[in-house]
Amino acid sequence: MTAATPSASSALSAPWRLIDGGVTAPRGFRAAGITAGLKPSGNPDLSLLLAPQGAVCAGTFTTSRVRAACVDLCAERLRASGGQARAVLTNSGQANACTGERGLADSLTATAELAQRLGLAAEEVLICSTGVIGVPIPMDTLIAGFDPLVDALIESGGDAAARAILTTDLVDKQWAIEAELGGRTVRIGGMAKGSGMIHPDMATMLGYLTCDAGVPADVWQAMVKRAVDRSFNAITVDGDTSTNDTYLAFAAGEGLSPEHYEALEIGLTAVSQHLARAIARDGEGATCLVEVRVEGAADEAGALRIARTVCGSSLVKCAVHGRDPNWGRIVAAAGRAGVAFDPEAVALWLGEHQLMDKGQPLAFDRPAASAYLKACASGAYLGGPGPEGDTVMIRLVLGDGPGVGTAWGCDLSDQYVRINADYTT
Amino acid sequence: MTAATPSASSALSAPWRLIDGGVTAPRGFRAAGITAGLKPSGNPDLSLLLAPQGAVCAGTFTTSRVRAACVDLCAERLRASGGQARAVLTNSGQANACTGERGLADSLTATAELAQRLGLAAEEVLICSTGVIGVPIPMDTLIAGFDPLVDALIESGGDAAARAILTTDLVDKQWAIEAELGGRTVRIGGMAKGSGMIHPDMATMLGYLTCDAGVPADVWQAMVKRAVDRSFNAITVDGDTSTNDTYLAFAAGEGLSPEHYEALEIGLTAVSQHLARAIARDGEGATCLVEVRVEGAADEAGALRIARTVCGSSLVKCAVHGRDPNWGRIVAAAGRAGVAFDPEAVALWLGEHQLMDKGQPLAFDRPAASAYLKACASGAYLGGPGPEGDTVMIRLVLGDGPGVGTAWGCDLSDQYVRINADYTT
Repeated sequence: MTAATPSASSALSAPWRLIDGGVTAPRGFRAAGITAGLKPSGNPDLSLLLAPQGAVCAGTFTTSRVRAACVDLCAERLRASGGQARAVLTNSGQANACTGERGLADSLTATAELAQRLGLAAEEVLICSTGVIGVPIPMDTLIAGFDPLVDALIESGGDAAARAILTTDLVDKQWAIEAELGGRTVRIGGMAKGSGMIHPDMATMLGYLTCDAGVPADVWQAMVKRAVDRSFNAITVDGDTSTNDTYLAFAAGEGLSPEHYEALEIGLTAVSQHLARAIARDGEGATCLVEVRVEGAADEAGALRIARTVCGSSLVKCAVHGRDPNWGRIVAAAGRAGVAFDPEAVALWLGEHQLMDKGQPLAFDRPAASAYLKACASGAYLGGPGPEGDTVMIRLVLGDGPGVGTAWGCDLSDQYVRINADYTT
Repeated sequence: MTAATPSASSALSAPWRLIDGGVTAPRGFRAAGITAGLKPSGNPDLSLLLAPQGAVCAGTFTTSRVRAACVDLCAERLRASGGQARAVLTNSGQANACTGERGLADSLTATAELAQRLGLAAEEVLICSTGVIGVPIPMDTLIAGFDPLVDALIESGGDAAARAILTTDLVDKQWAIEAELGGRTVRIGGMAKGSGMIHPDMATMLGYLTCDAGVPADVWQAMVKRAVDRSFNAITVDGDTSTNDTYLAFAAGEGLSPEHYEALEIGLTAVSQHLARAIARDGEGATCLVEVRVEGAADEAGALRIARTVCGSSLVKCAVHGRDPNWGRIVAAAGRAGVAFDPEAVALWLGEHQLMDKGQPLAFDRPAASAYLKACASGAYLGGPGPEGDTVMIRLVLGDGPGVGTAWGCDLSDQYVRINADYTT
């Protein structure tokens, strides 16, 4: 068993480097974000992302049986077009879920009205909604916002768009990277929202990614699926999947040679993971990000399942919040994940502190391990896990299998309960 | 859609009636509980249940991959004997999980030493352990307790045994019922412990049931499995399965005619459900019991899965704690359970208040629904759901399928987080 220092999942792999911006960092995309009056707060609430020349678009959607009409509409349009789209509208304030037949009719009307103003076919426009469940979108207000929204479209509109998709988020979530691939610069950018899977009646994780390199639709779809499994599908704030969760990834531009697909997927995965971590870090009541890396499992799917189970355990989350290096709760959560492993082979690290070996607890420096958790929560720990000082690193080595998987979550605080219980009735 | 008043799952079905006591209410069993010094608190910590003439015994155990040696030993002995046992020892204070090879050796030694004092073969004695994970049982203290434990065995020892299996529970959990079956009185009794699936390092749900009617081992095993699926497998406090969870059901006495098996199973299920509800009600930080009844699903397994998912949702639990009749969280949790249903057919009741019909929210009396939740939390609501005034009743009708299932949980309070986070490091 090697006692390697935990690697930083947040470190950006070559050939990629960080650049400023979000979804409009890649060339050829335009975006806008305005205040249309859908939110009582008066915050920006209407966002548009446009690929003027069209784009290959891969979407992944909530697996909930109770999903909003806009999700059905996006999935159906991408299926019918073979993965092509030109624009996506996002309204925040009303999730348009549990609104019956009216929900679909309103989504159809909204995309048709907007398409007309953009000179597009309705089928080329997608729509995402986030906000209160069971409340329809005020359609007059929405449609009145379309002219100013289209007027606001600019090539540097990523910031405004990223702000207008938020609901209860404390911060906006954007990232962009670039690399030289095949003698030219390829850029990938993204934005996301979501701070609980569902907030007090405020729903939804939404993510959007853009890339200025052309890739065949089937290749892009497969890449995006793998990237989502390793990012958005690997985070948990409270275990509650929303009715509206959507991730849309657009690729538009000069075709990229297949020899660079592997590098492109590395970048796509990095941006997706960064956005996913940003959502977990902004989890309701959270004081730190928790990263659980599982190694030595039989396969990646099993490793991911165990990592996600540990991340989702209320008792592990409470222990992290209490700065308690509680190895028993971690290994107990791993044991109930439904994945086979030999309990007598388990080794466990918390940051640089090894807590278990061969399935049994070690004598470790408990005050130092607790101090590590405390430093992570204050953002002050920069000794080990890379540039993100608020990340608690849990590393579980199950055996000598090839399966590796990483999941992200956050601690569970009494603040989370107060946010979700003290909401007025 | 019938707007039936929710039925009380806690009502006892004929021919059964409530009697005093627990595991020694059925004739032919003896029990004891003493303080052996295994717990620093000085509370009772060693318990013994004996069926002097032997008994048919069915066991169900934790599905965790990380399970204590005593669980392996119980499962193996019941397999080898074809479902026969005479005694079960329970020590509370140390879970004897994650203790390596020593864990199994100590369990073997303990049962052999106790069997000798009881005049039994070691293979006829089972052992359950609950308490701190990763800490071995102090064997000298344990074995020194065996003589006084055996001396304390009496036919009315159920109370003492029920107290000695507790760890962090606030109350003991016992129940007994009787019925006239085939011209004689048959009794069923039980006891249980557990207040979180895992408390601050204190593990385990344990349940024990006795019955003074003889039933073939295969019939008994099948009955117990169905009863456990409808009781202990249908409760959730925090979603964390323990390393030591065990339920042992003993049947010993004059053989019962097969025509009474159905009535026996009704009683067996009622006692199991009562004990399971008692565990959920004693959940860490809980202020009320939550019962979720799902009707109209395609089958019972799907109904149970949805009921359990709703019960386990952190957001639903927070809403109940905040006395918020939040139908959106309930239906969203149902949607992510992985079970197919038509969202447009869903109807939802909270107590006597109907919140949804045909998949859409109704205009309901929100202050009255909130007052219902508040009354349940104070134990003052006795208008609808039977004799247990602290039970919040959630009833979800999915369609017209035959599947019905009920699950139990509790609310999520900031007290839960404090209990599990403020544990000293």
